[in-house]
Amino acid sequence: MKRTLGVCYYPEHWPMDQWAQDARDMVAAGLSWVRIGEFAWSRLEPSEGDFQFEWLDQAIETLGGAGLKIILGTPTATPPKWVLEKHPDMLAVDEQGQPRKFGSRRHYCFSHEGYKSESRRITRILAKRYGKNPHIAAWQTDNEYGCHDTTRSYSNAARVAFQDWLAQRYQSIDAMNRAWGNVFWSMEYDTFDQVDLPNLTVTEPNHPHMLAFRRFSSDQVVVFNRIQVDEIRAHSDAPIIHNYMGRVTDFDHYAVGADLDIASWDSYPIGFLSDRLEASDEHKARYLRQGDPDMQAFHHDLYRAVGKGRWWIMEQQPGPVNWAPYNPAPLNGMARLWAWEAFAHGAETVCYFRWRQAPFAQEQMHAGLKRPDGVDAPAMAECKQVADEIAQLSDVGTVSADVALIFDYHSCWAWESQPQGADFDMFRLALASYRALRRAGLSVDIISPNHAIDGYKLVLAPGLMHINDNLHQRLAEFDGLALLGPRTGLKTDELSIPIPMGPNVPMLDATVSLLESIPPNSAIALDGGGQFLHWFEHLEGQGEVVRKTRDGKPAIMRAGGLHYMAGWPDDDTYLDIVKTLCSAVEIETLNLPDGLRVRDTPSHRFYINYAPEPCEFDGVRINAADVVWVERV
Amino acid sequence: MKRTLGVCYYPEHWPMDQWAQDARDMVAAGLSWVRIGEFAWSRLEPSEGDFQFEWLDQAIETLGGAGLKIILGTPTATPPKWVLEKHPDMLAVDEQGQPRKFGSRRHYCFSHEGYKSESRRITRILAKRYGKNPHIAAWQTDNEYGCHDTTRSYSNAARVAFQDWLAQRYQSIDAMNRAWGNVFWSMEYDTFDQVDLPNLTVTEPNHPHMLAFRRFSSDQVVVFNRIQVDEIRAHSDAPIIHNYMGRVTDFDHYAVGADLDIASWDSYPIGFLSDRLEASDEHKARYLRQGDPDMQAFHHDLYRAVGKGRWWIMEQQPGPVNWAPYNPAPLNGMARLWAWEAFAHGAETVCYFRWRQAPFAQEQMHAGLKRPDGVDAPAMAECKQVADEIAQLSDVGTVSADVALIFDYHSCWAWESQPQGADFDMFRLALASYRALRRAGLSVDIISPNHAIDGYKLVLAPGLMHINDNLHQRLAEFDGLALLGPRTGLKTDELSIPIPMGPNVPMLDATVSLLESIPPNSAIALDGGGQFLHWFEHLEGQGEVVRKTRDGKPAIMRAGGLHYMAGWPDDDTYLDIVKTLCSAVEIETLNLPDGLRVRDTPSHRFYINYAPEPCEFDGVRINAADVVWVERV
Amino acid sequence: MKRTLGVCYYPEHWPMDQWAQDARDMVAAGLSWVRIGEFAWSRLEPSEGDFQFEWLDQAIETLGGAGLKIILGTPTATPPKWVLEKHPDMLAVDEQGQPRKFGSRRHYCFSHEGYKSESRRITRILAKRYGKNPHIAAWQTDNEYGCHDTTRSYSNAARVAFQDWLAQRYQSIDAMNRAWGNVFWSMEYDTFDQVDLPNLTVTEPNHPHMLAFRRFSSDQVVVFNRIQVDEIRAHSDAPIIHNYMGRVTDFDHYAVGADLDIASWDSYPIGFLSDRLEASDEHKARYLRQGDPDMQAFHHDLYRAVGKGRWWIMEQQPGPVNWAPYNPAPLNGMARLWAWEAFAHGAETVCYFRWRQAPFAQEQMHAGLKRPDGVDAPAMAECKQVADEIAQLSDVGTVSADVALIFDYHSCWAWESQPQGADFDMFRLALASYRALRRAGLSVDIISPNHAIDGYKLVLAPGLMHINDNLHQRLAEFDGLALLGPRTGLKTDELSIPIPMGPNVPMLDATVSLLESIPPNSAIALDGGGQFLHWFEHLEGQGEVVRKTRDGKPAIMRAGGLHYMAGWPDDDTYLDIVKTLCSAVEIETLNLPDGLRVRDTPSHRFYINYAPEPCEFDGVRINAADVVWVERV
Repeated sequence: MKRTLGVCYYPEHWPMDQWAQDARDMVAAGLSWVRIGEFAWSRLEPSEGDFQFEWLDQAIETLGGAGLKIILGTPTATPPKWVLEKHPDMLAVDEQGQPRKFGSRRHYCFSHEGYKSESRRITRILAKRYGKNPHIAAWQTDNEYGCHDTTRSYSNAARVAFQDWLAQRYQSIDAMNRAWGNVFWSMEYDTFDQVDLPNLTVTEPNHPHMLAFRRFSSDQVVVFNRIQVDEIRAHSDAPIIHNYMGRVTDFDHYAVGADLDIASWDSYPIGFLSDRLEASDEHKARYLRQGDPDMQAFHHDLYRAVGKGRWWIMEQQPGPVNWAPYNPAPLNGMARLWAWEAFAHGAETVCYFRWRQAPFAQEQMHAGLKRPDGVDAPAMAECKQVADEIAQLSDVGTVSADVALIFDYHSCWAWESQPQGADFDMFRLALASYRALRRAGLSVDIISPNHAIDGYKLVLAPGLMHINDNLHQRLAEFDGLALLGPRTGLKTDELSIPIPMGPNVPMLDATVSLLESIPPNSAIALDGGGQFLHWFEHLEGQGEVVRKTRDGKPAIMRAGGLHYMAGWPDDDTYLDIVKTLCSAVEIETLNLPDGLRVRDTPSHRFYINYAPEPCEFDGVRINAADVVWVERV
Repeated sequence: MKRTLGVCYYPEHWPMDQWAQDARDMVAAGLSWVRIGEFAWSRLEPSEGDFQFEWLDQAIETLGGAGLKIILGTPTATPPKWVLEKHPDMLAVDEQGQPRKFGSRRHYCFSHEGYKSESRRITRILAKRYGKNPHIAAWQTDNEYGCHDTTRSYSNAARVAFQDWLAQRYQSIDAMNRAWGNVFWSMEYDTFDQVDLPNLTVTEPNHPHMLAFRRFSSDQVVVFNRIQVDEIRAHSDAPIIHNYMGRVTDFDHYAVGADLDIASWDSYPIGFLSDRLEASDEHKARYLRQGDPDMQAFHHDLYRAVGKGRWWIMEQQPGPVNWAPYNPAPLNGMARLWAWEAFAHGAETVCYFRWRQAPFAQEQMHAGLKRPDGVDAPAMAECKQVADEIAQLSDVGTVSADVALIFDYHSCWAWESQPQGADFDMFRLALASYRALRRAGLSVDIISPNHAIDGYKLVLAPGLMHINDNLHQRLAEFDGLALLGPRTGLKTDELSIPIPMGPNVPMLDATVSLLESIPPNSAIALDGGGQFLHWFEHLEGQGEVVRKTRDGKPAIMRAGGLHYMAGWPDDDTYLDIVKTLCSAVEIETLNLPDGLRVRDTPSHRFYINYAPEPCEFDGVRINAADVVWVERV
Repeated sequence: MKRTLGVCYYPEHWPMDQWAQDARDMVAAGLSWVRIGEFAWSRLEPSEGDFQFEWLDQAIETLGGAGLKIILGTPTATPPKWVLEKHPDMLAVDEQGQPRKFGSRRHYCFSHEGYKSESRRITRILAKRYGKNPHIAAWQTDNEYGCHDTTRSYSNAARVAFQDWLAQRYQSIDAMNRAWGNVFWSMEYDTFDQVDLPNLTVTEPNHPHMLAFRRFSSDQVVVFNRIQVDEIRAHSDAPIIHNYMGRVTDFDHYAVGADLDIASWDSYPIGFLSDRLEASDEHKARYLRQGDPDMQAFHHDLYRAVGKGRWWIMEQQPGPVNWAPYNPAPLNGMARLWAWEAFAHGAETVCYFRWRQAPFAQEQMHAGLKRPDGVDAPAMAECKQVADEIAQLSDVGTVSADVALIFDYHSCWAWESQPQGADFDMFRLALASYRALRRAGLSVDIISPNHAIDGYKLVLAPGLMHINDNLHQRLAEFDGLALLGPRTGLKTDELSIPIPMGPNVPMLDATVSLLESIPPNSAIALDGGGQFLHWFEHLEGQGEVVRKTRDGKPAIMRAGGLHYMAGWPDDDTYLDIVKTLCSAVEIETLNLPDGLRVRDTPSHRFYINYAPEPCEFDGVRINAADVVWVERV
């Protein structure tokens, strides 16, 4: 399959007489796809039942007629004012109990039945009208579920729905009381109707109460999305996509993805570096105009799993954005590098966001391929270069990775519900694990805990607080190496401590007798160098100790191929551990210069240089912000 | 005109039999003015209609009889409890939706019609009773509008008034939707009644929505003040004054000032250093007991413009205050220095706050000229020295400055509505610009964007996001040098991007093609030294590049006398840029020792030493915390 | 009296058939006491009037029968859900106006009459049923009053009760207006019913208003506790205890303690170091697994005063906890050290919290003497060692200290109501004073301001903002040395400035003419070395200056034995000042190695090494985390 490029476009923002020229320019720029419609509800239905489809018909005809394939978005992320007036209680409520008002976007509670009906209705009408339109080649449901902290709502609608969800899950209130240990502080309930949402309590709520609310809230997203999928499928054969965000872990993307045909995500490397990455000031300064070297690839590999192999970038940052604490411009070359890195990781399509920078409203400072005045922005030339390169390069394909990293949303919620330490977060641990693998030059699969692991030579499962029976069985049968821990297999599915105590992993005779969270200046030194940060578990048992702390405690224990790591290594230590494991199973690792990353495809090796200076490796010179590929021998 | 001193006094706080002695002591200290009455409503009208004016009659008689001129304040900043009980919804509501309760001061919403009536009523009654009283030589309206973040209220009264204001401004809802770009996220409205206040939205509200609310809120202050002015003018010929605060930019002081005769402000140099200045710890330690060397002068020059030439200090810090994070005592000499610096900048009168430190309530730790026990506080001797010096020095007058700095409140609100970067604020930029001019030894006028600029040799207009037609025209005709930018002329009046894109300034062939906000450790190095912090604009066009970044991009472009600066220089770079410009128009600049400042009057040059050590300059030795003046040749 | 050990146990968390073995194991571990019942309301009365006492009868019989003495807790810290449904408005309301919901613990407002009735009722029923039970050897009221910031509630119940309290205290509204200085900003009230709670005001409320609300809130705790005491006393002769927390100063512990027989506190040294101690990162790293060397002893001495000589540790940390920012494990030896330090300070009993770590709910990560799987946790061996050592050592007794430190809760509230500086807190000052005494090797009594001081050689009274008549008289008659200040005797009982101005202490001719709060980088250097931080008072008067600042101002003034200190010395300066005073009254001081502390009993001297390395002193070698005692000669 040929990789393709696309762009996001808002015909409703521009004069109708400009559409045709825009369409021609898109095609000339090498773009194949255009996404439209996802915020246009107030123009499609300005008041209830008053449908204004002519302009959209025309836009589709103009864009499609020019040769572009269209992704049509459902407009449910931005219900117009009249929907709010019809359903005044549909607003989500924040953790402090305040309704989150109209005036921006995503102003709805996933649990509100009235709004779910509106969402179903507008989706059905769009699907009916455009489901067979030959230009509509894909659908997008809503927009960026979870963005702006919108997964969880503390509304009355959510409370009632949560009570129903609990009743479904536990069937009897006694079962729930026992599962949660509600006897602890006389927190026992007589009926499900008594259970409130876990906000504004005097001190922290019961951890399984928090976890259940996170699971419920995730399920509400799945249900909301499925309603749209069902409506679209009834009228269209085009693939259905959602555009996920970076570092949003509030809902189970695997579960939403199960209902969709393709996963996509919105990749803003520079915004994410500034806004949602824990790193030193030096690291952030070094990668200020490139983004973190592993953040994008992590999400590429994650969403490849969410999409069951099929994934896109639906929005690719082309220049400065408007929403991060600092919004610098990318280095020349980055708009191309990001696209090629995505293709190397298997992306089918990369859509830049957006065609032309809007001169008005909240995102007026968000760059596009064109400036507000229509002049090409710097990214346009890079976009065209990518288009040319795609045309010349045969399909890059997707490599069979030797290494897998298990990432689990339920564990993210378990960590949030029971952090046990400051500066502590499941995503950070997963990204640190991924970074170690990438710095070793490895191509990685990220997989769900329900995914098969046979065929991999090395599997990492850090921080997977509960290991389900499937995975337990697979680990027992696994003939590669596994590196589990820290904090893996230490909890039941209901976030209590199992008896016998964990780590509940196959074969290994080991018990975590004591757990410690530790401040940054109090790392645990390892024998022979390196250190654990943040976290340390005291392991007892007969497992073979393959690495120790400086004062003789087990740092890594093993039984056969299964290794359990008792702490959170710093970056260099983690790299060293990964390399040692790889050499044991004959996975080749690399000594990459700082900022250089490598990704293999079946046919090529891609050298991706995130550093602000050129480097040389394997006889290949790679400029700053450049990507170079060579055929694999 | 002779400069004069005054003091703030609260007869209602002290036994009646002490008033006469206090009045005599004031006169003996060299004071000419005494401000009274501005918090005394509960004593003037303890319950509705129950007026108790005898004590105030007596106080006026006693103070006036001793030879003092009286400024009488309207007491509307502190409505008594019964007013609240009559109008329970008159409280302002904070951004989180909580009413801001009775129990301190400024507990009212500017939009509440009921409270506006009460304010009109009590003002009318006072004006009638005292309007012709020979001792009442000036009036003060309310007290410190905007203090404690009170300009903006999210009350129901404000919501309704905002809707009316919008209807007045835009006339049609379609016009407003278009002006704001509400199509962007289906934020379009059908009627003005649907528009809510821009708080508690899911993510940021539309920027012009925020800007409109700021403009509206400012207008409410203007209207509130004008009501009092109209009532007073009907009965009195005495000048009307308001006492503004430091670094309050929430309302348009020029607009309030247009209705008043004299501007005044409340100058707390040490409190402001600790509480509202971004500076390094070293800077704050060096000026701990003096205040920032430019903060006071900035406000002096700003309020001279607000007062159309006539301005006072209504409250001058005399010793430690109670409200800043740290409250040290001034160095000996500062209470005199601050007064003389004000006179040098044209102040007619400087009133110390307060006569005697109150032993009770919120400000009991706020020093006065006298201690609570009646003993002279350290500032008293300095006050007397100033009085003696005034008597000996002929009128200092106000100099005609060669340099003007344009300061615009609407731009402050535009920056707040669309910051585009952390640690970023219009006031900071304006003060940084002013500091560069002051460090160069210049006497400066601060002017509104509606003020004429001909006659100046150099005009600075940093951060003026929108340039109105008047100013545009004046710049086109200007024959001096102008230094615009960064962020000047880049927006329409409705905070969108103009097409053609800015900077929308006369003559200059330049376009800002790209904008960057950058973190502190990632400054943009300039060719030949110096750097830009915070912000950088990529300039394209044929304008002459007179300064470049180290990598060759334009840093300053010019066309004729008009210069556009693409970034925010650090302090030393800014000084260097200013000196270069000055030398081109033959404005003499000075190389002042650290902490020394200079201000010229028609007859004298004042040397003002904010440093904690003595210095020598121009053959003049100036001690720490001292001010020395010499006749100009 | 022999010292004893105990443990906290929750029979309701474990199968009934495990109780007997647990009881035998407790006895075998050397434990004498077991605390039960304090969170068990939902099991004792699952719905209103449905009492289920059989299990508790059985638990008492099993534990008591095994030879354990039982402390029975009233379960009022965790009212079950039905109590909340019966009294929906009994929830406390936070300072932002939000009710603090069910789902954790301490979810009640102390002022709610309905809940007070429920509390009285359940206490009466328990007291009747178990008051004569021979195994019930002590009672605990509620649990950790004030924990989770629960002393102050902004509920309607609190508002009404506050108005009544004010009416009782002031009798006439005019008296209150005068006492508070409400004239200041027209804050005068006509009736007590108009007075609201001091939250959500525009700027800070009047300081005496805040102070009154703190006093009221403290009194509500006293009343709440007294209700339970009265019910228990009517039916039982066993002593009544409450378990206080560390660094909770929101209510007057002396006043609650006056109604009880024994004080106890819950000592979590490692949690408190991480969670509630201001210290450098280095200090926190050095004592990470031991806790601060003075924090526990401070509370031991404080609660000895609160208990009028009788005090316990009701909950002793045995391993990592779950609630601090960082939760490391103690060094080996600390679970023993902490117990012996308590005994050396006079504790009758030390109860470890808890017997077996619960595998579920909020505290599942909180270690016990046993792990969740029943295996001994590390602290178990140390507990047994302490039991053996108790058996061998004769009663350690309580020493007569030469030195007293006055600690006053009303002053804590006065500081909070009128901080006058950032990073500023009465507890910090008291702990700094105590640390100086401890580092000098002294055994200290902490006493209330109402306690006699004759018999002491040295008394410290730092930060005691108001000195009551009793203490004034005692100081006047005192023949030892007293070190008062900073900020001692500077205010009236209503938090205003006295005239004549303070320090209002006997004999000393001194006046604080000026007060300064100063940032950390601007310390006041003292003549001959050392410095004041945070705070400095300018002293005038004829008192003898015994220490000066480097620029000649008085740092310490004296009249006879009474010394007034004008600032807050850093730790080493404070130690030096204390040693100087001690030498004047022939109190022997020691030069202790860093981290070593000493406590004397009548018969022994205890060397307590908090350092992570061994030390030697007085010819005694003390290992890290070890405690060694030698007979006093």
